[in-house]
Parts: sequence; structure tokens; C-alpha cells
Amino acid sequence: MSQTLHLIPVSLGESPITRWLPADVQKTAAALDYYIAENAKTARAFLKLIGTDKPIQDITIHALSRNTDVAQIRQWLKQAPANENIGLVSEAGCPAVADPGALVVQTAHEMGIRVAPWTGPSSIILGLMASGLNGQNFVFHGYAPVAPAERAQQLRTWEVASRKSRQTQIFIETPYRNDAMFETLIKSLSGQTRLCVARALTTDNERIQTHSITEWKKRPTPDLQKQPTLFLFQA
Amino acid sequence: MSQTLHLIPVSLGESPITRWLPADVQKTAAALDYYIAENAKTARAFLKLIGTDKPIQDITIHALSRNTDVAQIRQWLKQAPANENIGLVSEAGCPAVADPGALVVQTAHEMGIRVAPWTGPSSIILGLMASGLNGQNFVFHGYAPVAPAERAQQLRTWEVASRKSRQTQIFIETPYRNDAMFETLIKSLSGQTRLCVARALTTDNERIQTHSITEWKKRPTPDLQKQPTLFLFQA
Repeated sequence: MSQTLHLIPVSLGESPITRWLPADVQKTAAALDYYIAENAKTARAFLKLIGTDKPIQDITIHALSRNTDVAQIRQWLKQAPANENIGLVSEAGCPAVADPGALVVQTAHEMGIRVAPWTGPSSIILGLMASGLNGQNFVFHGYAPVAPAERAQQLRTWEVASRKSRQTQIFIETPYRNDAMFETLIKSLSGQTRLCVARALTTDNERIQTHSITEWKKRPTPDLQKQPTLFLFQA
Repeated sequence: MSQTLHLIPVSLGESPITRWLPADVQKTAAALDYYIAENAKTARAFLKLIGTDKPIQDITIHALSRNTDVAQIRQWLKQAPANENIGLVSEAGCPAVADPGALVVQTAHEMGIRVAPWTGPSSIILGLMASGLNGQNFVFHGYAPVAPAERAQQLRTWEVASRKSRQTQIFIETPYRNDAMFETLIKSLSGQTRLCVARALTTDNERIQTHSITEWKKRPTPDLQKQPTLFLFQA
């Protein structure tokens, strides 16, 4: 029980670090020499930003992918020098949320390694806070299906669930498909359903708008092209 | 569109501010003279902690309750001096998540007031990150029913939903009922279901444990008495 796996949030986009990271998290992350990262390149950019105690080339970074198996993760955790703590970072936001990091955390629990979650930006929570939609009952689905008919069907199923228990439905989309997603939402959901589009959270391009589907139909289409966007609705 | 409603997170418990609040959020919150708060007393304690630009007695704090209606909120937002921004704070953690603040945000959107969400501690995200349970599909239910039979039934219904789509189920309990909740979970869920108990997040009493129900039955009962605890499970 001498080691700790530190769960270190990273930025959601271009934004001054004092806007989204508490000072102690920066200090903790800067002192770690051994990382598991969703993306080694963005991890290095983060380490450069926070200013590590050691030169970055002396810091071990193992890159995690959707296909990394438990045996590999166990080996990484075992290989960490006994006197060194381990960091886990995602490509954006909080590790182990909307990314494959949960398997690392699960493995750490199984090996008796202490897990320490740190505060940082979560697009899901920031979007939910700012949406004005129900924050007392909500679900995050990850991605919606891509095929058009299946997608429209899934959105309507989520709308029924939302109506039944005043539950906010939250999901993400690959940025280049944002416009198609917005169009499908406008076409598929009921007029009174409130839809929030939360774009580029924490950056200078941040824009959060909530309107009923009926109101959205009268308004200009939001500019979401190539920008990370969270979609939320409540029937 | 000249005013902004700033959504300011507060602490989850006794903990140094540098552990859970980015410097810019502290600075932004310290400059506000007009607040809507879930609890005026804890809001004042927060303002004292961050060191406000004006004396605290010169800062307006309107106390929000479960019964505050839209007309009242609209009046508060209208009464805010035209050159002053407004702050929204919860009793703990992020405003408008697991508290009645969403109505304030909704009203701000309707009045054309810009809404700015700020990064801070969310027990839901911190607990999810640290649980090792699925962070790509999860639901937050608020509170489970209190009546024992109804509660056990609800937990089993959530377990079925979790099994169906690998969905992490998240909920909270009033601290004095934590022990009873833990007991019901152990009795009601299947042996292979993984249960995470995340206690006193961000404080020195933080303790996060994830085990299968079968393993939990062999272990000492966790000490949750009177401490804020998040429960998470995945079938």
C-alpha cells in the first residue's frame, strides 16, 4: 500500500492553466516520474505546460489504447519503481471518464494500490451545470449510434426515458459530425424538449445555449464545426 | 447580454482550497458582490475562505430553497445591479448538480444572461474516476427510495439496467443512513456486481474502495457514519 495512482485531469482545450487546475494538482502532477496516458503526445504537452520537476525525457509515459489488456496494465503498474507514485492522464478532461482509463483504475484497486482522484475540468459536469437542465437525475451515454435511422431511433428512446423521470440525457459526438447530430436532434425530438449545446467549454470559444426544439428551429444553427461539443436534452 | 451568472463550485468538506479550486475561480468569486446560494451560512463561510474584495456584510446573498419559484428567481436576477455579475453557489460541490440550482440557470438562459460554469470538485466525477467502474456510460439517480422494500427493489432494477449496457449506477444517501444503505446493497445485489464506496472525497478522511459483493461480504464493513459518501456499482 505504499504506492498511489494519481488521477490527474488535463485541459479541455486552449485555456490558461489557472482557469481549470487547482495549484496542488499541478504540484502533484509535476512531481510524478511515471505516467500511463491515453495519448503520449498530449501527455507530454501537459507535462511541458505544468513544468515537471525532472526533464520530460526522464519521465516514463506508457500509452494506453482501447486495446490495451489487463496483463499489460498490471505489468506497467508492477514496473513502476517501488518509491514512485504513478499518474494517469486522459487525452482531455478527467481520466477514466469517457475514455479507456477505468481499466487502469480497476487494476490498481485489484493490486492494492491507493487511488487518488484530483479535481479538474469535466465537460460533462461543466455542461450539465450550465445547461439549466435537471442535475438531480442524469445519464451520460458516450456516443450515439452513427447510422442515421438507428441514431434517430436511439434519440427518441432517450427522450422517452427523459420524460419518464425528468432525466437529463448527455452524449458527445466526434467534432466533424456535430452539424449532422444537431440536425438529427432538431428533426427527431419533440417541440417542448429542451436541448443544450455546450461548445468548447473552458476556452475562449465557449458557448452554451439552451432552447426548446421549437425555439431552436427559429434560430440560426449554432457554429459547432470541428469544436468539441457536449449535447444535453431534457423532455 | 452584459451580465454573467458565474457558477462557482465550493468545497466538499474540510480541505485546503489549493487542493480543489483553480486560482482564477477563486479570483472571480472574490470579485462578485451578488450571490444566490443554496445555503446562506455555508456561502458566507466560503466567501470568508476565499477572501472577498468587499467586506462580506456588503455582499448580497439570496438563499435558494427547494421551494423557491421562478418568479422569485427572476426578481433576484433582475434586481442585480446592471454593472454587477451574479454568483451561484451550492451547499457543497458544483452548483446545479444534485441540488436545486438548475432553476436559476434555466431562468438566466431565458432572461438572456450569459452562464459561465467554473471548474471545481464534483463528488460524482471524483467518485466515478476513482471507482474503476465504467466511465463511458453512467447514470446519477440522486437519492434511492427510503422505504426498505422499495429501496431493495429499486437497487435490483438499477442492477438489471447496469448489466444490460455496462452502465455504472451512481447515487447518494443522507450520511446517517449510509450504514443501512450499505447493508441493503450487500443483501440485494448479485455476488459478481462491483460496488464502490467513496467516502469524504477531497478531505483527509477520503477512502475509496471497490470490491465485488462477494468480496465485500468477507471484509469489515466500511466506516461511513456521518460522512458524505457516494455509492457506485456496476453489474
